[in-house]
Amino acid sequence: MKISVVKNILEANDRIAQENRAIFDKKGLVVFNLMSSPGAGKTSLLEKTIDGLKDHLRMGVIEGDIQSSQDAERIARRGIPVVQINTGGACHLDGNMIRDTFEDFNFDDLDLLVVENVGNLVCPAEFQVGEDFKVMILSVTEGADKPSKYPLMFHESKVLLINKIDLLPYVDCDIQTIKKEALKINPHLTMFEISCKTGEGLDAWYSWLKEAVRSRGVDLKGK
Amino acid sequence: MKISVVKNILEANDRIAQENRAIFDKKGLVVFNLMSSPGAGKTSLLEKTIDGLKDHLRMGVIEGDIQSSQDAERIARRGIPVVQINTGGACHLDGNMIRDTFEDFNFDDLDLLVVENVGNLVCPAEFQVGEDFKVMILSVTEGADKPSKYPLMFHESKVLLINKIDLLPYVDCDIQTIKKEALKINPHLTMFEISCKTGEGLDAWYSWLKEAVRSRGVDLKGK
Repeated sequence: MKISVVKNILEANDRIAQENRAIFDKKGLVVFNLMSSPGAGKTSLLEKTIDGLKDHLRMGVIEGDIQSSQDAERIARRGIPVVQINTGGACHLDGNMIRDTFEDFNFDDLDLLVVENVGNLVCPAEFQVGEDFKVMILSVTEGADKPSKYPLMFHESKVLLINKIDLLPYVDCDIQTIKKEALKINPHLTMFEISCKTGEGLDAWYSWLKEAVRSRGVDLKGK
Repeated sequence: MKISVVKNILEANDRIAQENRAIFDKKGLVVFNLMSSPGAGKTSLLEKTIDGLKDHLRMGVIEGDIQSSQDAERIARRGIPVVQINTGGACHLDGNMIRDTFEDFNFDDLDLLVVENVGNLVCPAEFQVGEDFKVMILSVTEGADKPSKYPLMFHESKVLLINKIDLLPYVDCDIQTIKKEALKINPHLTMFEISCKTGEGLDAWYSWLKEAVRSRGVDLKGK
C-alpha cells in the first residue's frame, strides 16, 4: 500500500518531468540538475561557473531551498536570471515546482539552465525535473565512504565534482578511494577534482560543460 | 490528497514511536536520536563517546544507513552491542525499523541506546523513533547559513554539536553566526564546539550526556 503510493507519486512526477523536458528541447535549452549534501559547495560552484563561462553561454539558475532566499541573492549578484523555490519542508525538487518557475524566465535568452536542488544526498536523486543530465558534488570533508553508503545519487549522475580539495591536507580522505568506489557504482561517471575556493581544477569542468552544451546543438558563439 | 497520505504516515509513525518509548522507559533506558548531513561526524562522535564514557555507562548503538555495514563494523570494534539497519533507499529511520531491532538487544544490560540516523539534514527530523531527545551535528565545513536553510532539525534538537572546529582556520565559517542563527530557531538549544579529530570540547559533551542519563533516574555507578 505504502509502496504503491510512492510509486504513483514517482510516476506522476516522471510524466511532468518529460513535459518539462519537451519544453526545454523545443527552446534548445540545456538543463542540468545539481545535487549534493548541504554545504558541499553547489552555490559556490555556480558562482564560479557563471564567471568562468559568461563570455561563452547565457545561464539561468533555479535555486531550491527548504527556506530562505540566500542562495538566489548570491546568484542574482552575478547579474543572471535566477528564481528561488522554497519547498516549505520538502526534501527535494520535483517536476511541478520547476514548471511553476517557467513564467519567470525568458528561455529564448538562455543556453543553459541549472537547477540547484535542496542539499540532500538521498531524495533529490529519485525525482526527475526534466533535466538533460545530473551533476553531483561531493566534498572531501564528507569522507571516502559516501559512494557505497549513498549509491543512488552516484548511480544517477553523469558528472561527479569532488570539491574542497584545498582541504585534503587537513582531512582523512583518500580521493582515489572516492573515485574507485564511485566507478564501481557508475562506470560511466565523469569525475573532476576541484576547489571552488582556489579555483583549482575548474577549467577542466568549464571545458566539459561547454562541450556538453555544444553537443546538444547549441551554437555558443552565435548566441 | 498527497498531504493527507503524508499526514497518515507521520501519525502512524508517531504511534509506533510512543510504543517504543514506553518499552525504553520500562527498561530504564535513555535513548537519543543522532542526526546530521552525510559526513558531519556521527560515527566518529560515537566512537569517541564510547571510549570517553565506557567506565560510566553501558551503551548500545543502532546504525542507520541506506546501504552497507561500515558504520556498524566501526562501532563493533569498540566492543559494544550494535545493530545495522539498511533502509534500502529510504532517507530516514522510522519507528518500525527501530522496533525490528529490539530482539537483537538485551536492554537490561544497557543504560544508553544511541540511534544513528541516515545522513540527511532534512527528513530524519520529521520522524520520531521513540527517543528521549535528539542530538544533531553540524560540521563547520557546511557553512554558517545552514540553520536558516534547514530549520526543522535545529528546531527539533536538544543539543547541537558543532564539529570539525580543527578546520576553522581553513574554511570560511563564522561559528558565532551558526550559534546566533541556531538560537533564533531554537532558543533552548544546548551547543558544544567540538573536534572528534583532536578531542577538543568533547569533555563538556561527555559531562552533559552523563548528567542527561543520570537525570532520567539511571544510576550510573550502580549499573
